[in-house]
Amino acid sequence: MNLKIDQERLISEIEALSKFSDAEAPAVTRIVFTPTDLKARDWMKSLCRDAGLAIRKDAIGNTFARWIGSDPLAPAVGTGSHIDAIPNAGKFDGVVGVLGGLEAIRALQRAGFRPRHSIELLVFTAEEPTRFGVGCLGSRLLSGTLSADAAAKLIDKDGQPVEEVRRKAGFSGDLREVKLPAGYYKAFVELHIEQGPVLERERQPLGIVEQIAAPASLYVTVEGSGGHAGGVLMRDRRDALCAAAELILALEHAARSTGAIDTVATVGICDVFPGAINSIPARVRLGIDVRDTSLARRDRVIADLEDACRKTTAQRQVSIRSELLNADAPAESGPEIVATLRQACEKHGLRFLPMTSRAYHDSLFMSRIAPMAMLFIPCRNGYSHRPDEYASPEDIARGTLVLAETLAMLSE
Amino acid sequence: MNLKIDQERLISEIEALSKFSDAEAPAVTRIVFTPTDLKARDWMKSLCRDAGLAIRKDAIGNTFARWIGSDPLAPAVGTGSHIDAIPNAGKFDGVVGVLGGLEAIRALQRAGFRPRHSIELLVFTAEEPTRFGVGCLGSRLLSGTLSADAAAKLIDKDGQPVEEVRRKAGFSGDLREVKLPAGYYKAFVELHIEQGPVLERERQPLGIVEQIAAPASLYVTVEGSGGHAGGVLMRDRRDALCAAAELILALEHAARSTGAIDTVATVGICDVFPGAINSIPARVRLGIDVRDTSLARRDRVIADLEDACRKTTAQRQVSIRSELLNADAPAESGPEIVATLRQACEKHGLRFLPMTSRAYHDSLFMSRIAPMAMLFIPCRNGYSHRPDEYASPEDIARGTLVLAETLAMLSE
Repeated sequence: MNLKIDQERLISEIEALSKFSDAEAPAVTRIVFTPTDLKARDWMKSLCRDAGLAIRKDAIGNTFARWIGSDPLAPAVGTGSHIDAIPNAGKFDGVVGVLGGLEAIRALQRAGFRPRHSIELLVFTAEEPTRFGVGCLGSRLLSGTLSADAAAKLIDKDGQPVEEVRRKAGFSGDLREVKLPAGYYKAFVELHIEQGPVLERERQPLGIVEQIAAPASLYVTVEGSGGHAGGVLMRDRRDALCAAAELILALEHAARSTGAIDTVATVGICDVFPGAINSIPARVRLGIDVRDTSLARRDRVIADLEDACRKTTAQRQVSIRSELLNADAPAESGPEIVATLRQACEKHGLRFLPMTSRAYHDSLFMSRIAPMAMLFIPCRNGYSHRPDEYASPEDIARGTLVLAETLAMLSE
Repeated sequence: MNLKIDQERLISEIEALSKFSDAEAPAVTRIVFTPTDLKARDWMKSLCRDAGLAIRKDAIGNTFARWIGSDPLAPAVGTGSHIDAIPNAGKFDGVVGVLGGLEAIRALQRAGFRPRHSIELLVFTAEEPTRFGVGCLGSRLLSGTLSADAAAKLIDKDGQPVEEVRRKAGFSGDLREVKLPAGYYKAFVELHIEQGPVLERERQPLGIVEQIAAPASLYVTVEGSGGHAGGVLMRDRRDALCAAAELILALEHAARSTGAIDTVATVGICDVFPGAINSIPARVRLGIDVRDTSLARRDRVIADLEDACRKTTAQRQVSIRSELLNADAPAESGPEIVATLRQACEKHGLRFLPMTSRAYHDSLFMSRIAPMAMLFIPCRNGYSHRPDEYASPEDIARGTLVLAETLAMLSE
């Protein structure tokens, strides 16, 4: 089989997709179910149609584009990722796995390959937690990790529930039917940029992910007492932002103190109410993300944060409540998929690094219903979720080649 | 002279004005030059017209409602305050001085008093810094504390300059002509809620302000390095929010360490960019307010903050820049106005407390062009700039009575 990636076309498609954005280039903002996201989906579907794929969508908007195999009833081999992007993000996160997955299929078609198992490209809805606070909404539902009832009730910043937003965006049907039946997929493989510095540092072109770290996210809300910035004496204050500042630093300290490089914790959101320069903050909401490859270590960081909340509550006479949005278990890759990825690399004479993904992905949830593995390519300086996120055309093409080879082996 | 305050009418007018709001009652939000603010101004002007006052407005929208005295060319006696309100504020801040000022004039009219000096009610534009970052925009311009050029260039959150916003709101003319000529006012007296707990604690119905604390406000912007909350190791981070948290706590510590009760410092704004739960903060902007009755102490707090910025810059490899928005000198009340206020209290058998205003007011700037003093009434728990701000009808009426008496004495 003469497998050739059309690098030029793939890169130009990545560029084209980046134009569907609500931020000024080079930044990309593409929030799920916005007009911009819907336009990008339509464009994506037209590319899939051009490749002769059969398209269906489910009630949450996950898109399935299938190259039907010679045994159409056999479980499919899945690949894919997401195209939604957080505010002020880059061009490659998720997109490489979607457009790379499509190009892998086209390369197999051009090479005259004929799969026995169908090969299905997935575009997951809302991998990013931006709009509804929970990441991987689409794959959580597909895998049954999140119930349809719980999903329908999630609300966005404007208080609109998922149920309403998805219907307005044109996705009808019953959310309970999103969950895939057992044995739907034979395997799932996701190509993705690393979103970290390891491959670049180790000068390796490819990473084969053997486990995905366990993410947890929570909101912590501090209620203090507001008032006029001039009128209230320091000793009479219960300033919610000063209390929140202690929690921010306590969380950072906890994550740095586990002794493991894989522990990370981030306060990415700090909303201050009322938020006026001459008004004492009455309420602060922190959006917190904690991850580790070890569930025990991750939960210790969260316990340390809770200790800090208790201490600050007592010392500052504020009230603090926390709301766990999600706390997922880590995932192990399927050994047979990892082995296939290794063989594919070796067949093309490409080096690779066995590794851990500290970022989480739809594959974390796909692992609940199918043997899964991920293939990483380097990204410059490890940057992701920012406008200067970058993966080289050569690295993208290499990843796509190994993905195509792997899909061929798995679908034979 | 039989001076009687129509308490019921005054309180119902305060209630009526609170309905001009962009927040849900009891909260009041009335940002300068919004449609809501413009409607409130029109309503206010109709009340002044009903009282037979001659109305003019200047290029920044300050409104002057004059009861012309028997010597129309003599310097006027000014009173008044503001009706703009920060997000999620209460009903009384500023409003008591405007509607109380109007009721004082009406009470003098009803009592058959005939002033020699004109009595002028002022409604200042943008006492609150919410929209343009600088407090007392109207009185700064009136008093020549801020130049017309500097004022025109101030921008709001959406990047619109004052010059454009005020024209869209219907205020034309040359900003340079806002500055009042020397000797325009014989005296200026402002009635206001205390916005602090002193009068309530000391069980005093009235406070006569002898000095106003010196406010300074600044923006401090921390630039760190963003990235994916899962992908970047703790040791590789330059998290702008963790750095900002150190500054928030350092400022609080500095204000608490001066040894003086009058030192207060507040971080009321903390804007995080990009502000996604799974994204490391790349940039944080803090809006900071520092006040003291002593200029030296206040500047020492700012110097301590700058030390903390230097330390954090070095330790966290972030960059921090600060921008001073305003740093005003404290004001002393005019001894003759203070004496008149005391006499007015004594005439009506009312106790009073000589005091300092830690909040600042348009009177701070009016003091640059006329002898000034302020009259405070208690507010419950010292709360202000919040929906549960409250002053009792009796306290409001008492303040209005003393104001009316004072205006009578000063205008004779």
